[in-house]
Amino acid sequence: MSTPFPASVYAARLDRARALTADAGLDAIVVGPGPDLTYLAGVEGNTIERLTALVIPAAGDPTVVVPRMELAKVRDTAVGALGLAVADWVDGQDPYALVTAAMPEAPARLGVSDALPALHVIPLADRLGLRPELATPVLREGRMIKDAAEIAELRRAGEAIDAVHRRVPGLLRAGRTEREVGADIAAAIVEEGHRTVEFVIVASGPHGADPHHEVSDRVIHDGDIVVVDIGGAVPAGYNSDSTRTYAVGEPDPEVARRIAVLVRAQQAAVDAVRPGVTAEQVDAAARDVLAAEGLAEAFVHRTGHGIGVTTHEEPYIAPGNDLPLREGMAFSIEPGIYFPGAWGSRIEDIVVVTADGCVNLNTTPHALTPAGG
Amino acid sequence: MSTPFPASVYAARLDRARALTADAGLDAIVVGPGPDLTYLAGVEGNTIERLTALVIPAAGDPTVVVPRMELAKVRDTAVGALGLAVADWVDGQDPYALVTAAMPEAPARLGVSDALPALHVIPLADRLGLRPELATPVLREGRMIKDAAEIAELRRAGEAIDAVHRRVPGLLRAGRTEREVGADIAAAIVEEGHRTVEFVIVASGPHGADPHHEVSDRVIHDGDIVVVDIGGAVPAGYNSDSTRTYAVGEPDPEVARRIAVLVRAQQAAVDAVRPGVTAEQVDAAARDVLAAEGLAEAFVHRTGHGIGVTTHEEPYIAPGNDLPLREGMAFSIEPGIYFPGAWGSRIEDIVVVTADGCVNLNTTPHALTPAGG
Repeated sequence: MSTPFPASVYAARLDRARALTADAGLDAIVVGPGPDLTYLAGVEGNTIERLTALVIPAAGDPTVVVPRMELAKVRDTAVGALGLAVADWVDGQDPYALVTAAMPEAPARLGVSDALPALHVIPLADRLGLRPELATPVLREGRMIKDAAEIAELRRAGEAIDAVHRRVPGLLRAGRTEREVGADIAAAIVEEGHRTVEFVIVASGPHGADPHHEVSDRVIHDGDIVVVDIGGAVPAGYNSDSTRTYAVGEPDPEVARRIAVLVRAQQAAVDAVRPGVTAEQVDAAARDVLAAEGLAEAFVHRTGHGIGVTTHEEPYIAPGNDLPLREGMAFSIEPGIYFPGAWGSRIEDIVVVTADGCVNLNTTPHALTPAGG
Repeated sequence: MSTPFPASVYAARLDRARALTADAGLDAIVVGPGPDLTYLAGVEGNTIERLTALVIPAAGDPTVVVPRMELAKVRDTAVGALGLAVADWVDGQDPYALVTAAMPEAPARLGVSDALPALHVIPLADRLGLRPELATPVLREGRMIKDAAEIAELRRAGEAIDAVHRRVPGLLRAGRTEREVGADIAAAIVEEGHRTVEFVIVASGPHGADPHHEVSDRVIHDGDIVVVDIGGAVPAGYNSDSTRTYAVGEPDPEVARRIAVLVRAQQAAVDAVRPGVTAEQVDAAARDVLAAEGLAEAFVHRTGHGIGVTTHEEPYIAPGNDLPLREGMAFSIEPGIYFPGAWGSRIEDIVVVTADGCVNLNTTPHALTPAGG
């Protein structure tokens, strides 16, 4: 079986999802390809236009609906190892009939996974004559709380990306383009133990003011501030994600002062993490430090996002999210400050909530880091 | 502006989409990130958890709803060049309010793009108190019919992948693994003019019986039949996709005979293509040749799929699809035969419908091709 964990892990996850489906008062949930399906059954990404779906009724056994041409691949996961019921179909047949056959008759409330595209949500809704609900509250319960094996994988990912950040000062120097530096970083991400490169942001000078800039042909100059935000997945599929800000040559003193404030803001949010504190309180911890220094307007995004088999998942550490943190949650803490046309900075660690605080999986220095030596 | 076509092309596509929205009796359509958004506005892929959406009301001007952190990237597309209305939002705000503000009050019928995930479909449906419909009939109209500039890009992609196939016999030999050959092919895909490698299938011996096998560490043996199905996107974003079947050493005569039947079946489907013929008739043309030779059961998938800014789109050349072909449609013709545990074969070209037939964009020989020399 090609999955990172033994079949018993998936059996437990499926049982839990069924119990949560029943607790939520849903008659069934339909989970399409995406991280929820990877988490529950070890089934990885897929084409979207042909329906693959795991149907979990509140009472009864799950069924996997799958195009016949994907059958071999799907059998080589927990689906085969656990002997789950499989309903396969070929082009010209109606997969939605197979989905409805796998759930109780005339369901009143149906949940669907976040990632299921409209292409499948809508035919299913029309056939059942109902408005589906998001199964997010059911599915995030399992995925949000990482067990020891998952935390070990996140720790492995954190160590791997830290090893890459330690190499960045040697790669980042005046005269090279962002793209050249990014290509070297991508190679280092794989060399240091990741299976895939998920993203490489090398945002120099004014590009640092765009939080989602990737790389460009801009030549890095002496005096540039450079945001390096990088991540990949280790072989078990769990992700790293860490950002540091580098100074090529001597930074402007006012820039350095503001980045020191950002480092304090990031640390304040890390320090705020413990069970029972809400996601928005952690967000506010970072935001308040920045606001006290007149930098509130420069922080244009949320403080963080959960991480696991995806790089962006629950819990989101954002204003308005009153979700209380619990032991085993893993997420980023990454406040940033952005000055359009000029420069930007962001500092990001992944933390895991413990019984009385959190452990930080990224241990390279947070302060503005000299590069180009 | 970072888009492959001038702004006027996108202006025309948007106007057409609005007219089709009105014709379909929809009050508005909501287009999320994905190929429809790329096609309409030059906006490329995006994270799914924060809503980016193009709202096109049947009467009125389009609006782009976008997270503020994506704003710079979105402005650098036709959105900026055409001065489209933009409603940006930050974490903690409600993007669905911006979507509903961009459409007529209390719409009765709303269309959504195929790729919009449940994560956004369902909150939007709940807010409006309606069951959305798929905007597929509106959106596929534009994307299905390629104009001259798009056909030129598809032709460029076809020439590039043909150049790769011409190099395959030199790369594929006994003693190498599928993965080694696949890595060389991936490099060749880029060298021959693609911007991205979209997929590389090297399915040798029994792996050829799995239509979606990719590569593995299996060592290729003398006497193996090898399916090589490869594609990438050229810089303008249009895709190639071509499959040939190779023989390493001397093939078994019965295997060779069956592959000759498959080549005839593929040619029969190509010959059937012209305006007015339906997609299912083209599918049947291939299927009938195989059935006449007792190979109907070995053909487990549809005959083809449309291609453009994605590798799988409308029109699907499949049983049950009575869509009449029209000039400018571009799709694959790729019947295959599969013998689980033993071997498989597939032959695939991209064709574009012309006024009286079709043009085939892939010109390398279709017959079982000797490799390993």
